[in-house]
Amino acid sequence: MSVVYAKGFSTAGVRGGISSVEGKKDVAVVVNNGPIFVAAGVFTTNRFAAAPVKYSRQIIADGGARAMVINSGGANACTGVAGFEQVKATAQFAGEKLGIQPDKILVASTGLIGELLPLDAVFAGVESAAKQLNNDEVSGKNAAEAIMTTDTKPKMVTLNVPSGYRVGGMVKGSGMIAPQLATMISVITTDAVVDQETAQEALQKATAKSFDCIDVDGCMSTNDTVVLLASGASGVEARKDEFEELIAKACSQLARQIIGDGEGSSHDIRIKVSGAQSYEGALACARAVASSNLLKCAIYGNDPNWGRVVSSLGTVPESVAQFDPDNVVVDINGVRVCEGGKPGQSRSLVSMTEREVFIDINLCTDSHEEAVVWTDDLTLDYVHINADYES
Amino acid sequence: MSVVYAKGFSTAGVRGGISSVEGKKDVAVVVNNGPIFVAAGVFTTNRFAAAPVKYSRQIIADGGARAMVINSGGANACTGVAGFEQVKATAQFAGEKLGIQPDKILVASTGLIGELLPLDAVFAGVESAAKQLNNDEVSGKNAAEAIMTTDTKPKMVTLNVPSGYRVGGMVKGSGMIAPQLATMISVITTDAVVDQETAQEALQKATAKSFDCIDVDGCMSTNDTVVLLASGASGVEARKDEFEELIAKACSQLARQIIGDGEGSSHDIRIKVSGAQSYEGALACARAVASSNLLKCAIYGNDPNWGRVVSSLGTVPESVAQFDPDNVVVDINGVRVCEGGKPGQSRSLVSMTEREVFIDINLCTDSHEEAVVWTDDLTLDYVHINADYES
Repeated sequence: MSVVYAKGFSTAGVRGGISSVEGKKDVAVVVNNGPIFVAAGVFTTNRFAAAPVKYSRQIIADGGARAMVINSGGANACTGVAGFEQVKATAQFAGEKLGIQPDKILVASTGLIGELLPLDAVFAGVESAAKQLNNDEVSGKNAAEAIMTTDTKPKMVTLNVPSGYRVGGMVKGSGMIAPQLATMISVITTDAVVDQETAQEALQKATAKSFDCIDVDGCMSTNDTVVLLASGASGVEARKDEFEELIAKACSQLARQIIGDGEGSSHDIRIKVSGAQSYEGALACARAVASSNLLKCAIYGNDPNWGRVVSSLGTVPESVAQFDPDNVVVDINGVRVCEGGKPGQSRSLVSMTEREVFIDINLCTDSHEEAVVWTDDLTLDYVHINADYES
Repeated sequence: MSVVYAKGFSTAGVRGGISSVEGKKDVAVVVNNGPIFVAAGVFTTNRFAAAPVKYSRQIIADGGARAMVINSGGANACTGVAGFEQVKATAQFAGEKLGIQPDKILVASTGLIGELLPLDAVFAGVESAAKQLNNDEVSGKNAAEAIMTTDTKPKMVTLNVPSGYRVGGMVKGSGMIAPQLATMISVITTDAVVDQETAQEALQKATAKSFDCIDVDGCMSTNDTVVLLASGASGVEARKDEFEELIAKACSQLARQIIGDGEGSSHDIRIKVSGAQSYEGALACARAVASSNLLKCAIYGNDPNWGRVVSSLGTVPESVAQFDPDNVVVDINGVRVCEGGKPGQSRSLVSMTEREVFIDINLCTDSHEEAVVWTDDLTLDYVHINADYES
């Protein structure tokens, strides 16, 4: 159901002809039918932010959005003034077809950087989508498929609470995924009655511990966009804490699906750092381990190589995370392979047959802060995919 | 000739039986025969620094060294007190065999992290090397081969100046190579007459712009060690500036050889960032680009994907490198593929047939600081090598 699980939304995912892949759907439209039109957003911090990111950031800042147009097959990034004009033209065209003011339409793009979009194909997609808008399961899935690039499957979430409102969502993302940013493109919808401030705050808190804590390949995108749209169609006013929890859950589930479909990956790796003096320190340690190509290759080779865990941990400055290397404990899939910075139980005891790999690092300081980062292994297929992509 | 090109040194490289690879030489000994015994060193900043790093750092600080023992086949890192005892025992044993005080002997190790060394094999190697010490070409090459791990060829340098002294050297390193540290293991020798302060300063300046500016895979080692030994055997007192230049050249040539032999690499990539406000800013930009897995895969696929260049550049905070994304220019192998942050000439004009790839980024600020970082492409063989290494 993805974005139409929450009441008050309709969607469509169609082929406009932007993508060079035969038959690939490449345009999704999501419409908020109200009665309220709250929109929150979190965007990439990349300084080469794409034209649609700059545009949509401004729409959110100006307050409210009634629809969103998303295309795959081209990122419209590093395309200068001409690229920005394409975004405006897309919003203008969509506005006409949907009967909505153009300045209430968000735009997002994903695909190759540095090329203008084939605008005719974008328009064709928007026109066709506008005619097919629906709130059924197929439409929700079509939209989630239309935003995919190297993703191998659509990624969706549906959640509800006893108090009577719903949260739905979709995300695309497989490569160029790194933390300290929003993420790839995600649309989350709710029929709760919330104000913009509550929605924005809930979304920021949720992304900080979900999309910001996954890392496929250490590469930050120019197009990352997470949007939360609220229609108020349930008539239920959301309790702030419950709402934040629900949005956090939706973001976590979508982020987890990105890792599950990381480019070429054969293992999902959960890195948990505990016993730290601060959350920031624990997070810095987890990120350092998650970014190790050597570790990620070892995991691909089913080798629980804890030496590559601690050598990454050792790159984190003491000013960021205080700990004594001689106290550090590392468990891989429950086997204590490193104890007090030295070899512990034999690595041969670690089973690596499951897709999920759990690396638990205890810094053993006198505090108990912890952080979790998810990453993927680095495989032959990752290199294949990214050596061949648009070459 | 490597380390014995400079007068006053003898060396040997032999098999002690540490490495599991049949017939692989795994112990090198370098002896400074004087008349002076100056030693300078730069070591990894990794907090899990290996036992031999901690030990040798102290020997250098205490002043002077007359010999160095290096083994491949095991890093003796994360091995606790027992590992440190192995280093002391090795120095003690080598001292007896070489007739040198043990506290004048440096020790370095490279190989798998988290396992103690087979000390019998280390001793066997030291004993055999002590008997074969020589200053001929074969011995120099044997030593350079004995320190190799995943390296596919020995890496050596020989330099001289008209004023009459020489510099020789060797290095090993292929993976787990990342900047902001010393590097892998390198021994540079000179027969110039220099004091410890001059030697240390020359080495630090040289490593900052050579070993610190290469990055194979973003992974910092626990065992990086660069040592400069001076014998004074030429009788020539080195002029400070000339000496610094020579050491810088030796380090640059050795660093360049590491990139030329980066694990599984098919392209050596020079990233030059110019037009920056500061050297530090230029360096941060070059490092960001050099660490992009996506770019490195694209280069492997012979794709001059400048989108992946600028998206990496865009991750550098403005506080670190001020520049306007809309002014940035990118040339790949002499073709201006990005101009003013937008597409320039067609990527199809870029020839990618040569091993070397030159990525020139001009930030086009009103200043002209620049920095260079070398890296390798990310290939199927890199993943193969690191998925299989000791698994």
